[in-house]
Amino acid sequence: MGDGPAAAGPSVPVAPLDASEVARFRAETPGCAHVTHFNHAGSSLPPAIVVDTVVGHLHREAEIGGYEAADEAADSLAAVYRSVARLLGAAPEDIAIVENATRAWDLVFYAIPFRPGDRILTSVSEYGSNVIAFLQVAQRGVEVEVVPNDASGQLSVDALGRMMDDRVKLVAVSHMPTNGGLLQPAAVIGDVVRGSEAIYLLDACQTAGQVPLDVRAIGCDFLTASARKYLRGPRGIGFLYAGQPWRTRLTPPFLDMRAAELVAADRFEVRDDARRFENWESSIANVLGMGVAVDYALDIGLDRIWATVRDRGETLRAALANLPGDRVATHDLGAERGGIVSLTVGGWDVPAIKRGLQNQGVNVSVTGVTSTRTDMEARGLDEMVRASVHYLTTDEEIGRLARAVGKMAASGPPSPGRTM
Amino acid sequence: MGDGPAAAGPSVPVAPLDASEVARFRAETPGCAHVTHFNHAGSSLPPAIVVDTVVGHLHREAEIGGYEAADEAADSLAAVYRSVARLLGAAPEDIAIVENATRAWDLVFYAIPFRPGDRILTSVSEYGSNVIAFLQVAQRGVEVEVVPNDASGQLSVDALGRMMDDRVKLVAVSHMPTNGGLLQPAAVIGDVVRGSEAIYLLDACQTAGQVPLDVRAIGCDFLTASARKYLRGPRGIGFLYAGQPWRTRLTPPFLDMRAAELVAADRFEVRDDARRFENWESSIANVLGMGVAVDYALDIGLDRIWATVRDRGETLRAALANLPGDRVATHDLGAERGGIVSLTVGGWDVPAIKRGLQNQGVNVSVTGVTSTRTDMEARGLDEMVRASVHYLTTDEEIGRLARAVGKMAASGPPSPGRTM
Repeated sequence: MGDGPAAAGPSVPVAPLDASEVARFRAETPGCAHVTHFNHAGSSLPPAIVVDTVVGHLHREAEIGGYEAADEAADSLAAVYRSVARLLGAAPEDIAIVENATRAWDLVFYAIPFRPGDRILTSVSEYGSNVIAFLQVAQRGVEVEVVPNDASGQLSVDALGRMMDDRVKLVAVSHMPTNGGLLQPAAVIGDVVRGSEAIYLLDACQTAGQVPLDVRAIGCDFLTASARKYLRGPRGIGFLYAGQPWRTRLTPPFLDMRAAELVAADRFEVRDDARRFENWESSIANVLGMGVAVDYALDIGLDRIWATVRDRGETLRAALANLPGDRVATHDLGAERGGIVSLTVGGWDVPAIKRGLQNQGVNVSVTGVTSTRTDMEARGLDEMVRASVHYLTTDEEIGRLARAVGKMAASGPPSPGRTM
Repeated sequence: MGDGPAAAGPSVPVAPLDASEVARFRAETPGCAHVTHFNHAGSSLPPAIVVDTVVGHLHREAEIGGYEAADEAADSLAAVYRSVARLLGAAPEDIAIVENATRAWDLVFYAIPFRPGDRILTSVSEYGSNVIAFLQVAQRGVEVEVVPNDASGQLSVDALGRMMDDRVKLVAVSHMPTNGGLLQPAAVIGDVVRGSEAIYLLDACQTAGQVPLDVRAIGCDFLTASARKYLRGPRGIGFLYAGQPWRTRLTPPFLDMRAAELVAADRFEVRDDARRFENWESSIANVLGMGVAVDYALDIGLDRIWATVRDRGETLRAALANLPGDRVATHDLGAERGGIVSLTVGGWDVPAIKRGLQNQGVNVSVTGVTSTRTDMEARGLDEMVRASVHYLTTDEEIGRLARAVGKMAASGPPSPGRTM
């Protein structure tokens, strides 16, 4: 682990979780008894303690009132900021709680005062929502440029170095793309950006809870993430890391009475900490659930989670590679790969594979060209099955998925109209 | 009811709920057994069916996965748009589901392409978060002007008419302010704005679920609301009505893959319906809970809810007015007043009143000068107790609150350091 680009902590190799540890965490996860879940990159299965925390607070709100329950939970709410800060190697004042990673990302991106001629540098496999936002400001004369990949398929740090100049206002990278296990070399990118006047915005949507994150080692100015994915938290909640000096140099695009104070009838003051990117109202239940999810991950240890997820990902790729015939292909790029495994089955329509697996109690998702268009078009891909593992994933589950995919590949695609 | 400015439906008087109906709705509300709740304008007490819907979906997510549970609930999710549309007299394509009323309001406000010299007209008692947003664009040369009140304390429609000109880009009004029961004459304001080139944005945060709303009768272009207040839904969810022609004339300030599609590597298309103001991720559980809350209100009938809330509000004001001595004052303005009752007790610090009541199981909130600064400063008020009733509120509860306040008024304020 210690040689990974975004690694934190000791440089000794870290052991994956052993079978008895995995069994315990599965026993603490109600969904493991119901489904074979390969959709952790979409929305993972939460531990019971996360669901119980959310539900407990909802019941408390119903009993004593929503504001009154929030007052009662004030200490626990404050602790959520400390937990997220600990996850990222940051300080609590660097953390904003936002409804999801996209909105967290938006609040930073749209705060940047782009001028015509400014340049945005991004990765080939940047998330489609981010690209749409880039194109929106491109209409104002901002140049959006894609840093090419190196031979491994990750962002070429050499090319990035050559592309940097005074006009680069933003370097925006998806730490792990939505469509594959590629882990971008976040800290090496940080080394290149450091010392320039550019803002470094890391979309850690898929890596928070999967990969050890240390914002100081990475050198990013902003980092965004959702709770529902590898952190195994609730849907509809996420967070933003907003470091100095850029945090207070940027004025959030939206301001309300949480972000700012109306100090006179004609004057407001924006707060200095990261909560300047928040708004007053949120689902307190989901915030508390996210805090418990972060603590759960921290208790296991992100280094051990990452060692396990990497192992599970490679085990699944090997199982798929070992299937007879040549119809099943995996498509993950990069020098270092994590829990997202993307695959296709020759002759098969991707949604039909998803439906066929779902009928066997196996959850996967479909990743389409619009989510990562530049990457997918360059590789001639239109849709892929995304099978994402977590530390919960067992050999038995990997075998079940591989067998089901192998059977589809051997039998050929379903005839039109046939229900899988 | 029929003579109310924002009224919809028949012009015959509508009867308030009778005692047996109220008893039934209270029996369906777990919180009624626990607290005497006068904080419905903050966050109301949800019916059990709302909590059960949210909790049921959270458990389903934990069992089968978050995305899989959303797929399963697709029909129920589509129905939420229809329910909200019915609440507002709108079409489902006019409705966006947004994380709260402030963000819904922001998404419209910050989409408006203000130019130096443009004018914003607003009400004296506009919500502080909205005012902060006005002041943020005022930094770019936009003029923010407050329409004076008429003798009753509501927005002077005559003054508004005189202030309208070609430079007015936006008329933004809080339908009911956060600090009192004043109901602004929304439809009469709409009559004035109609035919001009101005956008009419109605903040219905406090009136959705309290007052019958018909966006066509009101004539607003946009309307925003939260679920947690008079609608008795979950925290952390709300909605936006976005009507034509302005909906597609405005480009939302944030765009993602829900709001727009990446149709080519360098081109996106924004969708035409109101979901162009949404983003992809949300708490599906809270969305479903909001739908059930809206249906619950529709089943009762907004006209009957409004008749009941008005009656409860006036009953509380009368009970407070009838207290011996002259230390208790209520402060609600307007020709027509709803469920928010604001009061002060001579000599008493407002937070001390709140704490004292809370120790007796009575929930109220504090409304401070920063929330409605222009109004509060004009009236020489710094803080008030906000006691908000709903159709659930009984005479017995009103009596309990009035007696507790009366006792405080009679006994004088607590000595410093004494815990109430």
